Amino acid sequence: MIQEVVLIDDHVNVTLVLPFPNAPLKKKLFALIREEVAKVDGQLVVQINVNQMEPKQRTSFMTRIRGKEPAIAMKNIYQVIAVMSGKGGVGKSTVAGLLAVMLQREGQEVGVLDADITGPSIPKMFGVSQPPISDTKGILPVKSRTGIKLMSINLLLADEAVPVIWRGPLISRAIEQFWRDISWGVLDYLIVDLPPGTSDAALTVAQMLPVRGFVVVTSPQELAGMVVCKAANMATQLGIPLIGLVENMSHVRCPNCGAEIKVFGPSQAEATARQIGTRLLGHIPLDSELAILCDNGLIENYNNDEFTSITEKVAEMANTSQSLETLSTSGESEYTK
Amino acid sequence: MIQEVVLIDDHVNVTLVLPFPNAPLKKKLFALIREEVAKVDGQLVVQINVNQMEPKQRTSFMTRIRGKEPAIAMKNIYQVIAVMSGKGGVGKSTVAGLLAVMLQREGQEVGVLDADITGPSIPKMFGVSQPPISDTKGILPVKSRTGIKLMSINLLLADEAVPVIWRGPLISRAIEQFWRDISWGVLDYLIVDLPPGTSDAALTVAQMLPVRGFVVVTSPQELAGMVVCKAANMATQLGIPLIGLVENMSHVRCPNCGAEIKVFGPSQAEATARQIGTRLLGHIPLDSELAILCDNGLIENYNNDEFTSITEKVAEMANTSQSLETLSTSGESEYTK
Repeated sequence: MIQEVVLIDDHVNVTLVLPFPNAPLKKKLFALIREEVAKVDGQLVVQINVNQMEPKQRTSFMTRIRGKEPAIAMKNIYQVIAVMSGKGGVGKSTVAGLLAVMLQREGQEVGVLDADITGPSIPKMFGVSQPPISDTKGILPVKSRTGIKLMSINLLLADEAVPVIWRGPLISRAIEQFWRDISWGVLDYLIVDLPPGTSDAALTVAQMLPVRGFVVVTSPQELAGMVVCKAANMATQLGIPLIGLVENMSHVRCPNCGAEIKVFGPSQAEATARQIGTRLLGHIPLDSELAILCDNGLIENYNNDEFTSITEKVAEMANTSQSLETLSTSGESEYTK
Repeated sequence: MIQEVVLIDDHVNVTLVLPFPNAPLKKKLFALIREEVAKVDGQLVVQINVNQMEPKQRTSFMTRIRGKEPAIAMKNIYQVIAVMSGKGGVGKSTVAGLLAVMLQREGQEVGVLDADITGPSIPKMFGVSQPPISDTKGILPVKSRTGIKLMSINLLLADEAVPVIWRGPLISRAIEQFWRDISWGVLDYLIVDLPPGTSDAALTVAQMLPVRGFVVVTSPQELAGMVVCKAANMATQLGIPLIGLVENMSHVRCPNCGAEIKVFGPSQAEATARQIGTRLLGHIPLDSELAILCDNGLIENYNNDEFTSITEKVAEMANTSQSLETLSTSGESEYTK
């Protein structure tokens, strides 16, 4: 990944070539380079430039760092990340949708599996409603405007207002089919949007899909915190790691006077994160612009720096155990050549 | 219910004696009296005074207007009202809790059955955590500070953060037991707090409990509206009437400058109410005072005129078919004596 190292006087210019402009480990790599240079000579000034890989180079690189096998041999899906909460309406689907949008912007192949069978909101957020079509390989997910692959029960209903009045076993079977029978193709990330609660849908996803970890979403209310703890404890009982906690609806910015209003009371997120033994990934404000974009199927137009940083942390955590080592080793060996 | 009618010149002074100061049909009765007086002489000026019944008088009156049988012979429960939404986090539990609080303030006997088994929030709102005790009649619900009878799975757990990782059939059985095996005693209203979704819990409540009607809760987001339509269509399919729609989180009032902020975008409630064929009962703002009261178990301290009016409408609708006739007939006959 290191293209060039030039030493002029006491300046070291390092040129990196990364698979995506915002590769998840960019910051780690920067730190690593500085650290290594400092070992050689503490007086050296380090400057790091970043280039992006050519498509071909990227493919061969990604294959190498991903290792020989994706998460499941039969699927070319490298990371399955589930977004859960326990509590409803704290913005799970929004967080799931935004994670997909931000990862996709970084050049990743992303899919979203809407596991909320009785209250699906993913298709509306992305403005898709056409039913999926089939090819010889099976049923194809529906692609969003920017190319995110989506699957949701609402894409299979003639009218989005039709209720799906199913007891648990049918819910589980639907989720199983979304995983098994959909021809997802190659995906860097499959984001699973779970319904609230710790019943059938969450259990099925945890038991049947190779979930890399849960991103837990909460709101500032203590009441939400309590229910979120239940969800986190479920994850622990099922042996699935927590990637981190996102606090949604942390405040509202008054468009008139700019005051920050804590509509759900003071934040409980730090305490909740500590209680469930994970780290706080960030706070998202309650943003009417986002609500309106979601209502109009335009979530892909949303920009928010805080969420970009949350996404970076999620990607970093998700990749930590399986590719952080690979990357840092390759970085070192390239550098020390 | 009419205690006295005094005619002085062109003034008619009518004194009513009502079971509760804010009896659900007070406004209807007032209108009825004015209408009847106008029939006699359009020039008469009507003044109506209200007294409250003595406890004994109230008991005999209530027995008479309730008719001989409560909703279910084996239970002394007169009205079962379920609060549903389909969508999570729109404030179902808050609406259920506030309905109970307001009805109780009017002097009604009220219970709340928390049918959200995996994400229960009723006990925390009311600040109760002690486990229910048993007597010879069975398990007694836990009483809140003001005497509202509560039952929730969280009252049975040693630690509120313990997750209830149950598939559908167990969820249904728990709700069934809360209905059948709890010794609720005499209740004017049992409010059922449903979890989001149209799966096991909602189905079980609709099929097993004599639900008088659903109060549907939504938020201004169109996305919520869509999921709420699913829930309403479920109610229709199961043959349970809709009492009306409550829009929660309609806006935030900036504490600094007083501006009204539509955090979830413009209201969709009128359109949603029309679409599901019910009436809009009212809008509730997103109120951090309420959030904080709920977090501290003090929902019973909350005051909100809009919600008082919503409660009146709910009580009126719930009582319409079975006691509106009784009341208006008795009113007429008393008056025309």
